[in-house]
Amino acid sequence: MNEVLIKAKLAKKASSKLALLDSSTKNAFLIALSNALLDSKELILKTNEIDLLHNDHLSDSLKDRLRLNSSRLDSMAEALVQLSQAEDPVNHVISETIRPNGLRIQKVSVPMGVIAMIYEARPNVTIDAAALAFKAGSAVILRGGKEALNSNKAFVSILRSTLLSCDLDPELIQLIEDPDKELAKTLMTANCLIDLLIPRGSARLIKTVLETATVPVLETGIGNCHAYVEKSADQDMALKIIVNAKCSRPSVCNSLEKVLIDEAIAETFLPKLVSKLRQANVFILGDEKSKDIDSTLGLATEEDWATEYLDLKIAIKIVKDLDEALDHIQKYSSKHSETILTSDSILAQRFLDEVDAAAVYHNASTRFTDGGEFGFSAEIGISTQKMHARGPVGLNELCSYKYKIFGEGQIR
Amino acid sequence: MNEVLIKAKLAKKASSKLALLDSSTKNAFLIALSNALLDSKELILKTNEIDLLHNDHLSDSLKDRLRLNSSRLDSMAEALVQLSQAEDPVNHVISETIRPNGLRIQKVSVPMGVIAMIYEARPNVTIDAAALAFKAGSAVILRGGKEALNSNKAFVSILRSTLLSCDLDPELIQLIEDPDKELAKTLMTANCLIDLLIPRGSARLIKTVLETATVPVLETGIGNCHAYVEKSADQDMALKIIVNAKCSRPSVCNSLEKVLIDEAIAETFLPKLVSKLRQANVFILGDEKSKDIDSTLGLATEEDWATEYLDLKIAIKIVKDLDEALDHIQKYSSKHSETILTSDSILAQRFLDEVDAAAVYHNASTRFTDGGEFGFSAEIGISTQKMHARGPVGLNELCSYKYKIFGEGQIR
Repeated sequence: MNEVLIKAKLAKKASSKLALLDSSTKNAFLIALSNALLDSKELILKTNEIDLLHNDHLSDSLKDRLRLNSSRLDSMAEALVQLSQAEDPVNHVISETIRPNGLRIQKVSVPMGVIAMIYEARPNVTIDAAALAFKAGSAVILRGGKEALNSNKAFVSILRSTLLSCDLDPELIQLIEDPDKELAKTLMTANCLIDLLIPRGSARLIKTVLETATVPVLETGIGNCHAYVEKSADQDMALKIIVNAKCSRPSVCNSLEKVLIDEAIAETFLPKLVSKLRQANVFILGDEKSKDIDSTLGLATEEDWATEYLDLKIAIKIVKDLDEALDHIQKYSSKHSETILTSDSILAQRFLDEVDAAAVYHNASTRFTDGGEFGFSAEIGISTQKMHARGPVGLNELCSYKYKIFGEGQIR
Repeated sequence: MNEVLIKAKLAKKASSKLALLDSSTKNAFLIALSNALLDSKELILKTNEIDLLHNDHLSDSLKDRLRLNSSRLDSMAEALVQLSQAEDPVNHVISETIRPNGLRIQKVSVPMGVIAMIYEARPNVTIDAAALAFKAGSAVILRGGKEALNSNKAFVSILRSTLLSCDLDPELIQLIEDPDKELAKTLMTANCLIDLLIPRGSARLIKTVLETATVPVLETGIGNCHAYVEKSADQDMALKIIVNAKCSRPSVCNSLEKVLIDEAIAETFLPKLVSKLRQANVFILGDEKSKDIDSTLGLATEEDWATEYLDLKIAIKIVKDLDEALDHIQKYSSKHSETILTSDSILAQRFLDEVDAAAVYHNASTRFTDGGEFGFSAEIGISTQKMHARGPVGLNELCSYKYKIFGEGQIR
């Protein structure tokens, strides 16, 4: 039996007791983990240095994702304290009915069981995912990028020793250390052992997981987000929202990638937008009509409309009206986040109703599609599929439910 | 482009209008469909005869699934009327919050979009699935067993002509006619076009779909259901429940397959149970301890404990206590339906809490795991996975949700 199956079986076995654990024991673990992280700062940072040394060939942005530092560890520790204060998502009676035959049927939230995470070289995900799954009552199997292996091993060692010190089963948290792709495949096809698999990372990683997995997968994260500037929009507000949505953190999935401008205001609005975006060092592409107004724009290709840049880059298209905007979004949207900027509440409502995306905004930045901004205590990613959960995946979205049925001898 | 991609694109395009359709228009279609079924009885039955003639080599039980008759069509027509009276699952505000920054976030139920069904030679599924998906606001792509192709074509012809007569887009309902397995694979991997795929049928069909699909799959239906007879059980009640759960319809997934008997009552209870089950023509296997009490029982093998018989066959095991019963169920359960028969409410609550299954019963037959019995208007199958939906999959479970966010210029 290989590493994955052994660890998955240990996790599965451990998960049944965790499912029944009371909230205060779970929260005490999260506090202990927060303290352990702070106490082990020096060790973690030294270990992370080794990963950085081994991966000096990576791009600066990948190294930035791989890098831990004192303030990042402080934030992680603080997030654990906040998570300990969040409401326990398990064992809520979601609904209760009494049937004509007297059967009482309770629908109750329960943990998933075993959650597997496949992710890239971001070691903080190791703590985030393990803690969130733990609070949601599930064991986790973590398979992070090989570049972060030393950091991940250090984190999992702290996680497991903290479990032990809290009289909990260390097998609740498993790290797959061997980077062999065949082992990743075993994880993705362990149908009796894995209840939910969440890939987190690049489009390529997610595609591989979708193609390989036979266990239930929650697809996260590509965001080709649009803003439609309708002709009645408050133009100053629209400029602020677009610049914020593009520039406040261009590398994340809720950042803006495309702007659709109503042709009635294009001649006045487009030059203002181009000027603001260029001040923020954004590279701007446009369709033919946009280039007619500003010939300095690059020409957006068919591929551009479908691309999530994750960079200081944006493409602008001029559209006739709401219908053309809706058609364009339907064709190219990744179903993540879309926003309409307008003073017309009827058109806004049409946009909110008709756009098929996890989060649809009126007069706000797409950057708010985030667990914390939605009032969730934490999140593990943004779902872009419609099955199970959509948008931020927090504690509640990491749970399932079951029916408890109370009878007095009923037969059918 | 092959048949599947063409039809999936047509369905996807049609689905966006259906998502916005008002309830009364949807319900009028269901009534019209009910009437059309009754008006076309003769034609449907003649067509079904052709399928039966072509498939005379099938087993009696498969032919029974393939066969339509006047009263089955009456039931299907009546079910459509009932479905028209069910509450519309779309456009419910599930929750609404106002964030400290003033953003108002509505979580609203929305249709899935396009639902694909892969099923075997049960032509009634064609009408059931299309009608349920329609009421839930989704287009459907149906791929039924080739044995039922003529019946399915007749049904889809009625479905599409009724859509037309109601001024609705006939492309909302698509039938894949070509039985080529490569086309089924195309359907299972059409990630931008299919929002949810539901396989319905044998364990083999479901396994193939899980292994092949890259679109989100809702796993339905294997039921290796257990009854645990605890020592304080009302034995008469236990006998009635077990006989009902095994015999009332042995071919369905919520029928009982295994009985676990507390050793303290085995000597008195087992002979009574064997006698009752044999009166009902049930073939009975037992573990070594059961055979010590009744040597006429067949010996249950390791394979038996994991098998869903779907037949008048059952296996009995004697267990020491609740813990051993829980361990056995955890090891072999298909997570469908499990029941404890006991007068001890504390043990019952432990069973309800600790057994990991879609439906867990106290003193009732497992046969109640059914949409209708749960008070759902209709169902498309029983989910045995934990992601998205568990237990009966009805109108609500065929829906997704999205967030509508109302801002006044908020940026992050």
